[in-house]
Amino acid sequence: MNKLVLLAVAGVLASGAPAAAQSSEKLDAAALAKIRDEGMNRSKVMETAFYLTDVSGPRLANSDGLKRANEWAKKQLTQYGLANANIEAWGDFGRGWDIEKSYVAMTAPYYHTMVGAPKAWTPSTPGALRLPVVVVKAATTAADLDQYKGQLRGKIVVMNVPTPPKTSTDPDLRRYSDEELKKLMEPAPPRPGVTTPDAAALATRRTMAELRTKTAEMLISEGAAAVLSARGGIYGTFNTTNGAPYAADAKPVLPEIEMTIEDQLRLIRLVEAGIPVEVEMETKTRFQSQDLKGYNVVAEIPGTDRKLKSEVVMLGGHIDSWHAATGATDNAAGCAVMMEAVRILKATGLKPRRTIRIALWGEEEQGLHGSRNYVKNNFGDPATMKLLPAHEKLTAYFNLDNGGGKIRGIYAQGNEAIAPIFSEWLKPFNDLGATTVTLRNTGSTDHVAFDAVGLPGFQFIQDGLDYFPQTHHTNQDTYDRLIADDLKQASVVVASFVYNAAMRDQKLPRKALPTVPKAQ
Amino acid sequence: MNKLVLLAVAGVLASGAPAAAQSSEKLDAAALAKIRDEGMNRSKVMETAFYLTDVSGPRLANSDGLKRANEWAKKQLTQYGLANANIEAWGDFGRGWDIEKSYVAMTAPYYHTMVGAPKAWTPSTPGALRLPVVVVKAATTAADLDQYKGQLRGKIVVMNVPTPPKTSTDPDLRRYSDEELKKLMEPAPPRPGVTTPDAAALATRRTMAELRTKTAEMLISEGAAAVLSARGGIYGTFNTTNGAPYAADAKPVLPEIEMTIEDQLRLIRLVEAGIPVEVEMETKTRFQSQDLKGYNVVAEIPGTDRKLKSEVVMLGGHIDSWHAATGATDNAAGCAVMMEAVRILKATGLKPRRTIRIALWGEEEQGLHGSRNYVKNNFGDPATMKLLPAHEKLTAYFNLDNGGGKIRGIYAQGNEAIAPIFSEWLKPFNDLGATTVTLRNTGSTDHVAFDAVGLPGFQFIQDGLDYFPQTHHTNQDTYDRLIADDLKQASVVVASFVYNAAMRDQKLPRKALPTVPKAQ
Repeated sequence: MNKLVLLAVAGVLASGAPAAAQSSEKLDAAALAKIRDEGMNRSKVMETAFYLTDVSGPRLANSDGLKRANEWAKKQLTQYGLANANIEAWGDFGRGWDIEKSYVAMTAPYYHTMVGAPKAWTPSTPGALRLPVVVVKAATTAADLDQYKGQLRGKIVVMNVPTPPKTSTDPDLRRYSDEELKKLMEPAPPRPGVTTPDAAALATRRTMAELRTKTAEMLISEGAAAVLSARGGIYGTFNTTNGAPYAADAKPVLPEIEMTIEDQLRLIRLVEAGIPVEVEMETKTRFQSQDLKGYNVVAEIPGTDRKLKSEVVMLGGHIDSWHAATGATDNAAGCAVMMEAVRILKATGLKPRRTIRIALWGEEEQGLHGSRNYVKNNFGDPATMKLLPAHEKLTAYFNLDNGGGKIRGIYAQGNEAIAPIFSEWLKPFNDLGATTVTLRNTGSTDHVAFDAVGLPGFQFIQDGLDYFPQTHHTNQDTYDRLIADDLKQASVVVASFVYNAAMRDQKLPRKALPTVPKAQ
Repeated sequence: MNKLVLLAVAGVLASGAPAAAQSSEKLDAAALAKIRDEGMNRSKVMETAFYLTDVSGPRLANSDGLKRANEWAKKQLTQYGLANANIEAWGDFGRGWDIEKSYVAMTAPYYHTMVGAPKAWTPSTPGALRLPVVVVKAATTAADLDQYKGQLRGKIVVMNVPTPPKTSTDPDLRRYSDEELKKLMEPAPPRPGVTTPDAAALATRRTMAELRTKTAEMLISEGAAAVLSARGGIYGTFNTTNGAPYAADAKPVLPEIEMTIEDQLRLIRLVEAGIPVEVEMETKTRFQSQDLKGYNVVAEIPGTDRKLKSEVVMLGGHIDSWHAATGATDNAAGCAVMMEAVRILKATGLKPRRTIRIALWGEEEQGLHGSRNYVKNNFGDPATMKLLPAHEKLTAYFNLDNGGGKIRGIYAQGNEAIAPIFSEWLKPFNDLGATTVTLRNTGSTDHVAFDAVGLPGFQFIQDGLDYFPQTHHTNQDTYDRLIADDLKQASVVVASFVYNAAMRDQKLPRKALPTVPKAQ
């Protein structure tokens, strides 16, 4: 899931029971039983997840790990019997970046290995550094930066942490209760946080962003050697993000390691108590600029109905991840489920009428690039709403990218006509906990690109498990977090939705096209 | 808290209300108010905890960090105005050991820094190693070891992990509910787990221990270069223990790093899938054998009553810790509270009739050595029940070592006469959540040494918070885990108990002396 703010727009109630009367979905019970049997009893989803995570490794945009995963996925989809498997460029992305060494320890007042990883796209240290530490606080005015003049040369800068970690009284593993699912079906409550910020708030935001840039520039001009920082996390878990732009012509930044907040705060407390602190650190990162393109992996199960096979049902999830773990819940889980769904459809020998196309998106974490550009290249441009011929041919896109939790339902994205259909489609899986259709929108995943040009694009409702705050974009998003039963269930539900969409006499109903061109 | 099994022996109900009639405790309300005011409004407990944890560092038995903490505590207690502050040897312990470098990463099939620390008392690697990995499973028969013959030379051995981490549905932060406290006052339920094991079970245990020794010997004789292992923990937290005896004449072992279970399992999964795995690791550990003694820190507030000042009230906790964190909840918290309690008593200017003696125990984590030997040297030997003159003079020992949680009551250790007295003593702090006296025993802390020779030794009941499983003996037992309000409350309750015991006309009632000599 991308870091963009989740947009939840108010929708109206869409429940299975009252909707049933309006729906006349013909479901192929025998086919659905085959799908369920294959997915539940001969699942390969954990094996797929293992290859995407442990074997491929971290899959940062345009990294070696992502290339390994793309190659493996293409080969595997071909082995499943899919056609036209391809790693296709979606356009220009930026530099590749991989970690070759990461080590950080406090060496005075005593030795303590610290836990961290280089921020994405930050450069190497010039060998191993062993230097005194200075704490730099976030500036609120430009004058705040003056105090560091002449203080930073040859030092490792520890950025101050605004808030200490707070132990939670919530359980780590969370599933939707019936009550919560019911609430999710109600229109989304108004969210005071998403009102348009006023001029003063915008100005403050701009000032803070400028100050962050100024601070980064000052660290370089004052001769600081490297930076240590931390954001969130607890008990050895830390969050990761990029520390520099990935553009080929990006300005230089300092080497920077993102650490656990516990390690960071110990350094800060010691420095603030006047105790000299020394840190040893070494990062070695490798950039590549030979291939600046971004890629998606696509493959097809060709349709078998003469009239309908030119129409397409799509399913997908993003295959890229952050770099300090192996992106298991974000989003090897979604990709493994989607790959398993097409494997199930091939293994059952079912003959879908429409063509089914799987897409494993690249560069989602850097701004939904893979899906946005795929949509722009194939279906239409949301900025101009100029549509391409294939726009007419896509019946739906189904996405999975809310962690490793099983499917509890689907967000209908305000598509009132589709809600009762989805309610019918969920019925055979009500006993597996998949029950809920909400008209609410959800954001931050690749279905948004489809929705933006008026195509039916959907993200499923998933149990949260430990996605927030433990695994999402942290160093602990590893294979260990995946629960086989959840992924099996999701594979079966997705396979059935895709199959139903491929078999339906009519294409799925659409919302009205966006009338106002949307800014990307 | 030591790793020995917690012993909870059945006791009978001891509640405040019904006991009140039997008690005629004269409490000095004005003195208690002063204690409360000083402890709540001018607390130094977090500052003390900071010096014990962040500033001193890890405090493994006979390490440099423990020496720093001992020195600081002695100085600080003297500054508080205590008399006779001393770091006194309790006897022979074994070698000192400190970490000077710890680095471990997977370097093939791709680079991934791993999270771990050398097991205590393991040797250094000969510089940085970069070697292939082989997985060794726990042997259940001697024949199991044969398969590794000729397979281990020049390899890094990854010990197999029996169980993957399991995300909990319990909250991380736990406090006793009223219901749970009520239950704690009932006699402990019979515990099937603590029945004497039968001959077959004992034989199996012996065999398993022998197999572990044989495995360790085989790793050396087969020429393995180093070991990686893991036990429990989740989300980047790992447990630590010793990897070799601390005895000066201990047999050599291999360098060994204890890691997060996530990192360990990734290596194992890759190896088992037939993918070549390479690990880079470097540990540098420093042994010292100049001073093999163990130490306790003691200091006194001399009594002011001519007749009673030869009698002593003791309070304490262990100051040593494990080595991968700074032992904040185990047990800087307990020491900080005890030091704060005596600071409060000095700051209030109260004049205790009996002498108050604080003891910060060394080497608890290696077998309650500091307190056991102190008791043996000063009060009597539990093996022979030969008692020394000071045995008669000790009115009570109060211990704190169940994490950083506030005090909810006290374990009366089967002392029926003392229960109603403690109930009275808790009353002024009922509003702070300290309410419960249980006759149950608790074990695994330093009060056990006193109880073993028939002295009134007690451990308080404390809220569990995140002690299990997050902080107890893990790499995440850091200052960040401490909650100021909890430690302030505990300091005030302890100061009042110690003060009451020092002022009481009579010594506190004792249980009958153990009649059968106990094995240490």
